[in-house]
Amino acid sequence: MAARPKLHYPNGRGRMESVRWVLAAAGVEVNSNSGLLFSGNHLLFQQVPMVEIDGMKLVQTRCILHYIAEKHHLFGKDLKERTLIDMYVEGTLDLLELLIMHPFLKPEDQQKEVVNMAQKAIIRYFPVFEKVLRSHGQNFLVGNQLSLADVILLQTILALEEKIPNILSAFPFLQEYTVKLSNFPTIKRFLEPGSKKKPPPDEIYVRTVYNIFMP
Amino acid sequence: MAARPKLHYPNGRGRMESVRWVLAAAGVEVNSNSGLLFSGNHLLFQQVPMVEIDGMKLVQTRCILHYIAEKHHLFGKDLKERTLIDMYVEGTLDLLELLIMHPFLKPEDQQKEVVNMAQKAIIRYFPVFEKVLRSHGQNFLVGNQLSLADVILLQTILALEEKIPNILSAFPFLQEYTVKLSNFPTIKRFLEPGSKKKPPPDEIYVRTVYNIFMP
Repeated sequence: MAARPKLHYPNGRGRMESVRWVLAAAGVEVNSNSGLLFSGNHLLFQQVPMVEIDGMKLVQTRCILHYIAEKHHLFGKDLKERTLIDMYVEGTLDLLELLIMHPFLKPEDQQKEVVNMAQKAIIRYFPVFEKVLRSHGQNFLVGNQLSLADVILLQTILALEEKIPNILSAFPFLQEYTVKLSNFPTIKRFLEPGSKKKPPPDEIYVRTVYNIFMP
Repeated sequence: MAARPKLHYPNGRGRMESVRWVLAAAGVEVNSNSGLLFSGNHLLFQQVPMVEIDGMKLVQTRCILHYIAEKHHLFGKDLKERTLIDMYVEGTLDLLELLIMHPFLKPEDQQKEVVNMAQKAIIRYFPVFEKVLRSHGQNFLVGNQLSLADVILLQTILALEEKIPNILSAFPFLQEYTVKLSNFPTIKRFLEPGSKKKPPPDEIYVRTVYNIFMP
């Protein structure tokens, strides 16, 4: 049996949460190191997330996501599907990045940024995915099977809904998609208590990150 | 014969320059549209770069780069090589992003940012690549053949050298690598006058971008 991947990151969502999501969706059990063992020697560009997997020490969120997606058949059946998945993932990550940075904004800027996120989601990103789902009538974005694009989009939708509960109100296909995807067996388990899913960022997480990265 | 890829972007480097580099390295001739035809209908997430290629309208820089690299055998011979290339590209793009944003900083912040870029390059990124090249003694970063990682790293090194001519002074292997890679036949042609390579950003480019994206 292959060793479990080991995730090196503070005990919070940040850029590692997508990795936790994709590993969970793929049904992979993981170990975590949230101790402060972030010595530069193990980190190629002196940055986390870092994941030890299959004898490699991978850094760079996208690189980690791509490797896991490729290994676990979440990246389409050919180059055209892979490219669509890649494009959808990149767009969604632009939106998710706003959520990742949000807790580090000044308190007086946070509410304004929620409005900005809502606008970006509703005007730029969700219409694209609503149209895709409406056009083919399937349960997944690409190739009628679960892919990296679905996992990252669901992560982003659920995290946005925590801040803006009615964010999907104008998108009936995305609403149905979210419900069905949340019941995909591996994802359903990840959404239940006791999984490796992290709670929304709180003050302790923000302080931990500041202490590690901006000491 | 397949139609030439068509690049939609303002007439300057920005996020399209990496795409121009990789297509040139692959020996692919391109057409360009720098007219202001950036109607939302053709742009998935209302953003350029957009590249029309093989019947697709691709957006998101990384997605475009990955597609071209995959198609033209610039992404390694197996998943481990692909993952190394991906990781090196992601690190280099973090550095390149600083260069892309530099002309849009306030004039009084630009010189300070050059110092920041130089530090990041010298402390965080170049030591990694110097070590890789020293360790295997080959002319390319991964698998002893040209890959996306080499193309993006060379682009970034040459653009940095325009601002900081001695940026490689402490990195003899990177110096030799830069010379050899610049003489790779397709790259050599791209570096000669008359190619699709764009000059460093000037005031006209900055104004054009502002007019398009922040009208």
